[in-house]
Amino acid sequence: MRNQPFRLAMVGGGEGAFIGAVHRAAAALDGDWRLVGGAFSGDPDRNRRSGDMLGIDPDRTYDSLDTLLAGENARPIGDRVDAIAIVTPNHLHAPMAIAALDAGFHVFCEKPMAMSVAESRLIAQAAARSGCQFGLAFTYSGYPLVEEARARVARGDFGRIRLVQVEYSQGWLSQAIDRDGNKQAEWRTDPARAGLGGCLGDIGTHAFHLAEHVSGLCVEELCADLSIHVEGRRLDDDVSVLLRLSGGARGVLKATQVAAGDENGLKLRIHGEHGGLEWSQMEPNTLTLRWLDRPAEMVRAAGPGLSPSTVPRLRTPSGHPEGYIEAFANLYRAFAARIRSGEAAAETAKGGADWCPSIADGLRTMAFVETVIANAAGDSKWTPLAAD
Amino acid sequence: MRNQPFRLAMVGGGEGAFIGAVHRAAAALDGDWRLVGGAFSGDPDRNRRSGDMLGIDPDRTYDSLDTLLAGENARPIGDRVDAIAIVTPNHLHAPMAIAALDAGFHVFCEKPMAMSVAESRLIAQAAARSGCQFGLAFTYSGYPLVEEARARVARGDFGRIRLVQVEYSQGWLSQAIDRDGNKQAEWRTDPARAGLGGCLGDIGTHAFHLAEHVSGLCVEELCADLSIHVEGRRLDDDVSVLLRLSGGARGVLKATQVAAGDENGLKLRIHGEHGGLEWSQMEPNTLTLRWLDRPAEMVRAAGPGLSPSTVPRLRTPSGHPEGYIEAFANLYRAFAARIRSGEAAAETAKGGADWCPSIADGLRTMAFVETVIANAAGDSKWTPLAAD
Amino acid sequence: MRNQPFRLAMVGGGEGAFIGAVHRAAAALDGDWRLVGGAFSGDPDRNRRSGDMLGIDPDRTYDSLDTLLAGENARPIGDRVDAIAIVTPNHLHAPMAIAALDAGFHVFCEKPMAMSVAESRLIAQAAARSGCQFGLAFTYSGYPLVEEARARVARGDFGRIRLVQVEYSQGWLSQAIDRDGNKQAEWRTDPARAGLGGCLGDIGTHAFHLAEHVSGLCVEELCADLSIHVEGRRLDDDVSVLLRLSGGARGVLKATQVAAGDENGLKLRIHGEHGGLEWSQMEPNTLTLRWLDRPAEMVRAAGPGLSPSTVPRLRTPSGHPEGYIEAFANLYRAFAARIRSGEAAAETAKGGADWCPSIADGLRTMAFVETVIANAAGDSKWTPLAAD
Amino acid sequence: MRNQPFRLAMVGGGEGAFIGAVHRAAAALDGDWRLVGGAFSGDPDRNRRSGDMLGIDPDRTYDSLDTLLAGENARPIGDRVDAIAIVTPNHLHAPMAIAALDAGFHVFCEKPMAMSVAESRLIAQAAARSGCQFGLAFTYSGYPLVEEARARVARGDFGRIRLVQVEYSQGWLSQAIDRDGNKQAEWRTDPARAGLGGCLGDIGTHAFHLAEHVSGLCVEELCADLSIHVEGRRLDDDVSVLLRLSGGARGVLKATQVAAGDENGLKLRIHGEHGGLEWSQMEPNTLTLRWLDRPAEMVRAAGPGLSPSTVPRLRTPSGHPEGYIEAFANLYRAFAARIRSGEAAAETAKGGADWCPSIADGLRTMAFVETVIANAAGDSKWTPLAAD
Repeated sequence: MRNQPFRLAMVGGGEGAFIGAVHRAAAALDGDWRLVGGAFSGDPDRNRRSGDMLGIDPDRTYDSLDTLLAGENARPIGDRVDAIAIVTPNHLHAPMAIAALDAGFHVFCEKPMAMSVAESRLIAQAAARSGCQFGLAFTYSGYPLVEEARARVARGDFGRIRLVQVEYSQGWLSQAIDRDGNKQAEWRTDPARAGLGGCLGDIGTHAFHLAEHVSGLCVEELCADLSIHVEGRRLDDDVSVLLRLSGGARGVLKATQVAAGDENGLKLRIHGEHGGLEWSQMEPNTLTLRWLDRPAEMVRAAGPGLSPSTVPRLRTPSGHPEGYIEAFANLYRAFAARIRSGEAAAETAKGGADWCPSIADGLRTMAFVETVIANAAGDSKWTPLAAD
Repeated sequence: MRNQPFRLAMVGGGEGAFIGAVHRAAAALDGDWRLVGGAFSGDPDRNRRSGDMLGIDPDRTYDSLDTLLAGENARPIGDRVDAIAIVTPNHLHAPMAIAALDAGFHVFCEKPMAMSVAESRLIAQAAARSGCQFGLAFTYSGYPLVEEARARVARGDFGRIRLVQVEYSQGWLSQAIDRDGNKQAEWRTDPARAGLGGCLGDIGTHAFHLAEHVSGLCVEELCADLSIHVEGRRLDDDVSVLLRLSGGARGVLKATQVAAGDENGLKLRIHGEHGGLEWSQMEPNTLTLRWLDRPAEMVRAAGPGLSPSTVPRLRTPSGHPEGYIEAFANLYRAFAARIRSGEAAAETAKGGADWCPSIADGLRTMAFVETVIANAAGDSKWTPLAAD
Repeated sequence: MRNQPFRLAMVGGGEGAFIGAVHRAAAALDGDWRLVGGAFSGDPDRNRRSGDMLGIDPDRTYDSLDTLLAGENARPIGDRVDAIAIVTPNHLHAPMAIAALDAGFHVFCEKPMAMSVAESRLIAQAAARSGCQFGLAFTYSGYPLVEEARARVARGDFGRIRLVQVEYSQGWLSQAIDRDGNKQAEWRTDPARAGLGGCLGDIGTHAFHLAEHVSGLCVEELCADLSIHVEGRRLDDDVSVLLRLSGGARGVLKATQVAAGDENGLKLRIHGEHGGLEWSQMEPNTLTLRWLDRPAEMVRAAGPGLSPSTVPRLRTPSGHPEGYIEAFANLYRAFAARIRSGEAAAETAKGGADWCPSIADGLRTMAFVETVIANAAGDSKWTPLAAD
Repeated sequence: MRNQPFRLAMVGGGEGAFIGAVHRAAAALDGDWRLVGGAFSGDPDRNRRSGDMLGIDPDRTYDSLDTLLAGENARPIGDRVDAIAIVTPNHLHAPMAIAALDAGFHVFCEKPMAMSVAESRLIAQAAARSGCQFGLAFTYSGYPLVEEARARVARGDFGRIRLVQVEYSQGWLSQAIDRDGNKQAEWRTDPARAGLGGCLGDIGTHAFHLAEHVSGLCVEELCADLSIHVEGRRLDDDVSVLLRLSGGARGVLKATQVAAGDENGLKLRIHGEHGGLEWSQMEPNTLTLRWLDRPAEMVRAAGPGLSPSTVPRLRTPSGHPEGYIEAFANLYRAFAARIRSGEAAAETAKGGADWCPSIADGLRTMAFVETVIANAAGDSKWTPLAAD
């Protein structure tokens, strides 16, 4: 039987947007998805130009999500889109995801999941009643060596985990570019579109997700400092958080967008009783392991010594670097696999071919955001982060 | 007007092949190409399974190149494939490329171009008489920072070039896996399918191409040592070459497939009067520049300070690593641009959006292979490498 | 006139001690010091063996500091030791330093300065009344590129400083070696000999000193988490601190001795409005500078672009690595220069040839230790760290 | 019994010299040597100033080697210098070494050993008739992890060795500084003082020595290209050599002093059947091991997994970097140990505490220089390098 690709429509991601183009490349890479429609921009001209540039049939270049949902549902089942990628600013995630799920489409959504835990719960309810899948773009969990790291911690290579250190260091908001016409910067620093967290919501959530995903631990309480370094900015651009995790582990999470000169420095370190690991997103094809009693090892993408769950996440032989788009494509591939398997997100195993970040990941990271904001605003030293 | 992707068919690249899958991912990445047909394997079952797995219409899963050419030419122009990707072992490159060009299709061919200079010339003639485009997968010239390196040398940042050092170090042929059923290894060490050079043809050509491409210099004479380290192997697995280049520059080229533990270590260093550059394929998003009179710089993909010709070769913001598939995709994108522009390969400028390795690159690298073999077999110290 | 070396005596540092040997090598390196006497151990046999091994005249191998001070003061001025190096466990620093200063000898003391701020003040008073010099082994401030970092921040290369991140990650106390006979571990985890801080006092003080020294900022308030990861240990082996510094900068300090597999990972990052710096003790000959608007630079020891105050701290041409002993030797050299200049510590300029950490550095780091302990023990989120 | 340091005198190494200062620091570091005399410069004022600056007794600041030898031999045995360090330009090595040996002093000599094999043999004869020790400053063999590399190759970790790649890349002679008053550059490019090889003799010899020392193989034949890149220079500033080594191994040696921007880039790679090693002088505390069948390892100075012969060559715990001076000091320490043991150089085992480069190393490297020059000047492709 022919292995037909799924049909994808996109909301947002018109000309000049960054993450929409990444979603498209990621979806295209393995042939699992074909972009056939979209509502790329609220601006009609921009929308049309975007559709043309992408080779979309003008009939399927819709002027809004609503017309998209109606138009696609009017098509015969074998022609209708299977899933909708939501790549708009944050405030639209929840209403759009709920509408799409309620209209019977699977949804693959940019992170953060929504503007609040409460909104995220509404998405969760919509997914439950629709029976459709919901995927969430915590991209970094798609890197093969992140899976390797997770698998090694899970199987106990390092013993009980004591330390979790995660940082996400960018510098692109070091100046007030949000007031100088940079679209990316503009909405990310606007509470109405970004939500309660600035840097916290944009990249702090990635760091938090990665830390819990790989360590297998839960943050139980936290103590945070939020700050705004660029005058006139309305949302935090710098976050520091002390973490107390399950099992007695301690951690530090640092996320900043004012580390001038830094690029996309997401780095995770985890140490247990016998050794530790280090992974850095900017050199993603090496996972460094250090040991108390023997030399450090560099586990390499597609090199010897990988865990079984890592191997299928690789496309090229060792030494042929894979990067961000490939990591992202692993999520799209897993999302396709999950649709095929029909299994509920909660039942897919981490490390499995159809595991992709989903509702639980979204709820958890939104709870993190709200807890950091509450702690930073108050006098209490430690604030519990409730288990979901 | 809708920006329709070109239609691509592939010859070779069935189940289990490495480079075919890379070509497909590269072609898909930017939406410039859609794979619609192919003759993936001489084995009928494998061919069919490959077509199905790739979602190819069974009508367009052909049992040979001949039926493919006939079948496609029988289709209306607006439906017919535009180009054929040849990803077979080396001995089939020339006959297939010539047949495809003569049938009126553009050809994108794996390297090396052919088994000999003579065969390569026949391809060149076929391309000339057909008016079709011929692209050649010297992948590494597709990396954005390789273009940056080339542009900087060309504009004189380092002064007159004195030293060119290129190495390509792999270890995967350290054992006799070519006699243990490894298909990739098997044909690459078989003179009938690989050609006169083993390591020399497979990766020495990449190293040579990169060195001349970036330095802008021509190797004028060379002195080589070829060796076979694994008993029973019939083609070289290790090459060392002293180079004398135009303008008085000296160089060393080292390529090996028996550096046990090495992955895909292609590295280029070029030094001029005032400074030098270093680029390493395994960390492709950094180009290191060193200077006599000021601190070394790390030019980063999508970071500040890039040349105008580098920027369009990038897809993601700085710190979001791009890799091998993206570099390869740059060649497919350039090849599409060249087809659109209709310009002859010889007239496209390096650094231009429609520059992609082509006939001149192929002839030159084949001349290198033949000259190395002649030198290594004889008593003369230096053998001239004729300018093409 | 002949440039005679100063005469040094050492207290502590007998057979098997680590830091005593480093002090001796550092003092010897440049010919500024000659070790002529000592009281190396409270154990008479060990003391004698140590003296013999070091080529010390048996007359000057004393059985205690008291007999050393008396013995040396009984010698003619031109033969008497000039300074005493104190390399004992922490609880002896204050009584010994005070006795030596009061006996008229300059003192070069291992860090931390003492067991408390109060004790440190007694040393300060002794130094003031004696007119002798007091040097303190905050070794890392002796590295040439730490001086380069400091000088660049001070001259404003990065604009106003916003972020200070310092970490000191070791793994050697990951197991209970303090109860298995490791002498180094034993006293460091014993409150009676180490003081109130374990990891905090041993390496947290180094991290804090480096952060303030290079940034030129003062920590104004802090919020800390101290923990003990190895069962039965009595002092902290892991410290995390959120910092608020002068001028609105924010920081994180992380020090740990249970990062299993880590060696001596002291790393400092500082970011300002226009760029940032990174220095790592384990690769001390590179200082990385990153910029918003141009490529990152690698400033190299003895390479181009160094500040005038860095150059005299170097001994070898670029590419000939200097390390820990050389950094330490820079402190001994500066301490000798300060004795020659006769200037009070408070009046020497950072960056000057006779600047070496001294009383102010000691008081400040002890205040840091006490403030962290107070904060970690209480419920308040932020505790001010009083300016000295 | 007191462990008295040996007394050292130095010839050459006055004000402004580079290598003399390194010898002094290296000799001082461990307390095995005390510099008590010297003839530092042929210029009387400079000589006197140098002696004063170094705290040398004016009686022992001699105006020439001859007066030094006579003066010291006139002193009582217990006061007389034990050894003489020769740190003059190359043309003086042989006459001075011979005179010193004949006068009954041990000699520690800068490399290269002499101006020719013939001269080197005269030194060998002098050493033999005197019974004195001769040490030679092939500094890089003093690095602890070079010993680790050697020991691992010797014990067969990598199987039979196939590839040896060594490079030594400097850029400091990229311009005609030899004609602009740079003393270091001046004599090194003057055939009368440097010998037949420029870059070849100065650093090519280091590279060659390191390659044979670590691989345990002999270069059996070679094919070389020598060049001069800076107009008007009389000696080579760039060398490339193809190597054929014992046991069928192949190699490349590249040494250059015109790689503008490069510092002191000595790097060695060796590969055998099962894996390989890489060591780089500029990051000397890591030895990288790569394997066919398991992840790469980073063996660290003072970390776990070291060979027994490496450990005594280390002074500090892991993560406290040691560098060039420490490596050099290991040679001085071994030279002292050899004098104590009284064993002939030929009988000391590599890896032993009293192994230090000596006559055999000197003869071998001089033969390499002469063979490269002969090959580069002639038409033969391969020239045998006779086993000594």
